[in-house]
Amino acid sequence: MQSWVGQGVDQIDTPALVIDLDAMERNLARMAAFARACQMRLRPHAKTHKSAELALLQMAQGAVGVCVQKIDEALALAQGGVGNIYITNEVIDPVKLARLAKAVHRGGTRFAMAVDNELGIERLLDALTEARATETSAIDVFVEMDIGHGRCGVESPEQALLLAQLIQQKPTLRFAGLQAYHGAAQHLRSTAERDATMANSAARVQATVNTLQGAGVNVPLITGAGTGSFVREAGSGLWGELQAGSYLFMDADYAANESDPDAPPFEHALFVKSQVMSRSNAHAVCDAGHKSHAIDSGLPKVAHPPGLRYANGGDEHGVLHPHEANAPPPPLGSAVWLIPGHCDPTVNLHDAYVGVRGGLFQGRVERIIAIDARGALT
Amino acid sequence: MQSWVGQGVDQIDTPALVIDLDAMERNLARMAAFARACQMRLRPHAKTHKSAELALLQMAQGAVGVCVQKIDEALALAQGGVGNIYITNEVIDPVKLARLAKAVHRGGTRFAMAVDNELGIERLLDALTEARATETSAIDVFVEMDIGHGRCGVESPEQALLLAQLIQQKPTLRFAGLQAYHGAAQHLRSTAERDATMANSAARVQATVNTLQGAGVNVPLITGAGTGSFVREAGSGLWGELQAGSYLFMDADYAANESDPDAPPFEHALFVKSQVMSRSNAHAVCDAGHKSHAIDSGLPKVAHPPGLRYANGGDEHGVLHPHEANAPPPPLGSAVWLIPGHCDPTVNLHDAYVGVRGGLFQGRVERIIAIDARGALT
Repeated sequence: MQSWVGQGVDQIDTPALVIDLDAMERNLARMAAFARACQMRLRPHAKTHKSAELALLQMAQGAVGVCVQKIDEALALAQGGVGNIYITNEVIDPVKLARLAKAVHRGGTRFAMAVDNELGIERLLDALTEARATETSAIDVFVEMDIGHGRCGVESPEQALLLAQLIQQKPTLRFAGLQAYHGAAQHLRSTAERDATMANSAARVQATVNTLQGAGVNVPLITGAGTGSFVREAGSGLWGELQAGSYLFMDADYAANESDPDAPPFEHALFVKSQVMSRSNAHAVCDAGHKSHAIDSGLPKVAHPPGLRYANGGDEHGVLHPHEANAPPPPLGSAVWLIPGHCDPTVNLHDAYVGVRGGLFQGRVERIIAIDARGALT
Repeated sequence: MQSWVGQGVDQIDTPALVIDLDAMERNLARMAAFARACQMRLRPHAKTHKSAELALLQMAQGAVGVCVQKIDEALALAQGGVGNIYITNEVIDPVKLARLAKAVHRGGTRFAMAVDNELGIERLLDALTEARATETSAIDVFVEMDIGHGRCGVESPEQALLLAQLIQQKPTLRFAGLQAYHGAAQHLRSTAERDATMANSAARVQATVNTLQGAGVNVPLITGAGTGSFVREAGSGLWGELQAGSYLFMDADYAANESDPDAPPFEHALFVKSQVMSRSNAHAVCDAGHKSHAIDSGLPKVAHPPGLRYANGGDEHGVLHPHEANAPPPPLGSAVWLIPGHCDPTVNLHDAYVGVRGGLFQGRVERIIAIDARGALT
C-alpha cells in the first residue's frame, strides 16, 4: 500500500481499506450517546477494528474498555496503550495463558477473560501462579453461558454456579459476572425474529441469575450484545454492558437487517477502494477480490459508481455488471468503491486503514491507522 | 504465533498454518517430473504460496520462474531473490506500473506481465520510459485472451492481433505470446466437464494463433493451466508452459474434483492446526474460524481426529460434530488438524508457515517459512 497523509482520495493506491472518518465519528458518537442514555456500560468489541488507535477513540468517548477474542489481540492492543481489555473467549492452552499471565503481572492494562469449564479456570490459575501474580494483579473472570447460539458457554444454571463458586475460591481470580452473547441472533433479518430469540436468551440469563443469587453468589455484571441485538439487551434490565463492535463501520450484511426503530442510524464508514483494470463491452473487472474483502457473509455492494452489481471474480478480481442491459461498464482506471459484506474479517486482511476526511469523492487522507492486531490469531 | 525450529508438533501454538514438508516435496517432485516428461515449461503460480523460499525450491527443481497476480507480490518475491517473475494480470494504474518499471530498470529479476487493452500497453511503456528502461532492460508482455472464463482477456483473435502488433512496435516491450487461463474450469467436478470446457478453450487458442500467424506474427509461447486442468493443456500441442500452483499444497476443494487418470497423485500438504477450547456433551469448539482459513470454496475438512465434521463457528471458532450420534467430541485442549477449503486465500491470512518434518503426529518443526507477499494486494 502506497498511501500518505494529505493525498487526495483519487490518488489512494488500490485495493485499499478506507475509513470515511466523518461517518465513523458519527457512528461512534451515536453509540456513545445511546449507551449514556440507557445508563449502560459500553465495551465495544475490538475484534472488528483490531486497532489500538480506534480503541482509544472509543474509550475517549466513554467506553469502559474494549473486548477481544484472542490473547494475542489483547497483547497487541495493550502494547498500543489500551488499558482495559476483556477476552470474551475461552482459552485452554497453557502456552497462551502464560503470555496473558505475564502481561497481567506486568500491570498497566486491566485484563478480563471468559471461562466455560473447570480446566480453563485451573490452567488460568496455574499460569498466574507461575507468573507470581498476586491478589493486587488479579484478573476478572466471566462465566460464559450459552444463550442459544450453541457454540461456547455452559448449558445450565447449575454449571454456571459451579464455575462461579470455583472462581470465588481463588485469590487471584475475581468472579466478574456472566458473559451472555448470541452471535447468530445478530444476523436474523427481521426485528420480530431478533425479538423472539433475545427474549428466549433473556429468560435463560434470568434463570441463571436466580440460581446464582439463590446460592448466595452475587452477579456483578452481565455483559454481551452485538450490533444486531443491542437495543434488546439494553432494554432487558439484565445486561449492564454492551459489546457491539460493527456499529463503528457497518457492513453490507448488517445493512440487510430490518432496522430496529430504537437503534441509532449507523452509516457505512468502511470501504474498499478498487479500480477497473480490465473491461469488455458488457462488464468491467476491478482489482479487488476476496483477498481484499471477506465474502463469508456475502459479496460486497458497490457504493459508487451507481448501477453496478459486484460478482465474484475470485481471489484478486471482482466482475462488475451494469444493472441496466446495454449500459456501458465503468472505464479503465476508474475508481470503484465497495462496501464489504462483513467488516471484521475484511479488516483482518489489511495492515492499515486509510482514514479520509471530507468524503470519498473530494476528501483527503487525514491519517493512516495501524491495524495492530491484524493476523493475531493465537 | 510462537513456533520455533526443533519444536514437536504437539507444541505448535494454534491456530497455525502447517506444511507437511515430506508431502509437499513429493508434490513438488511429481509435478516437476510430469512437466519434464511432457517437455513442458513449468512456471508455478506463486499466488498460492506467496513465499520466496518456496518459489526458489520450485525453481531448483526445474521451474523456469513463477507467476504472481499483483505487482507488489512480484516485488516482494524479487526482494527475496526470485529471478524470474511473470505477473499474469492486467495493470492500468500508472503508480503501480512505475514501481514495476523501477524494478525492471534496476535489474536482477526478469519480469513479464499480461495486457488485454491498449491503455495497459501505453501506460507500461510510459512507465518504462520514465524509469529510463532501455532495450536491454525490456519486459516480456503476454496478450491475455478470454478462453471461456468471462473475466479478463481479449474476446477475439483480431483484438489479440492488434495488441500483439502494438507491442512489437515498442522497443522496450517484447511480445512473449498468449496468456490463456480458464480459472472457472479448474473447479468443474467431473473430468468430462473439464475435457469439454478445455477443448472449447483450445479451439479458441488455435483460432487466435492462426490469425496471428496469418498476419506474420510469431507466437513464441502459450502459457496457462491450473491444478484442475493442466493435463489437458499439456496434451494439447498448443500450450508450452504450465502455471498450476495449488498442486503444491492441495486443498479440500481440489480434492473434491474427480481425479484425472494422467495427473500425478498430489497429497494434502497444508493444514491448519487448531485445538479444542470449549466442549459440550454433543460438540467441541476449536480455535480456528474463518480468520484462520478462507471459506470461499467451502469449509475445511477435519484431517484428524477422524469422525468429525467442521461446522462454521464464525470468525474465530469452528464447531466440531461427531459423525456418529452419541460419539464423544474430542477433549479440551486436544489438537484438531484441518484441511483448508481453499489454499490460496488461507495462506494470505498467515505471516509464516510452520514447516514440519516427519509427519503431523510425531514430526518436529524443521523450519519457519516466511510468507513474503502476505497482504501484497496492490
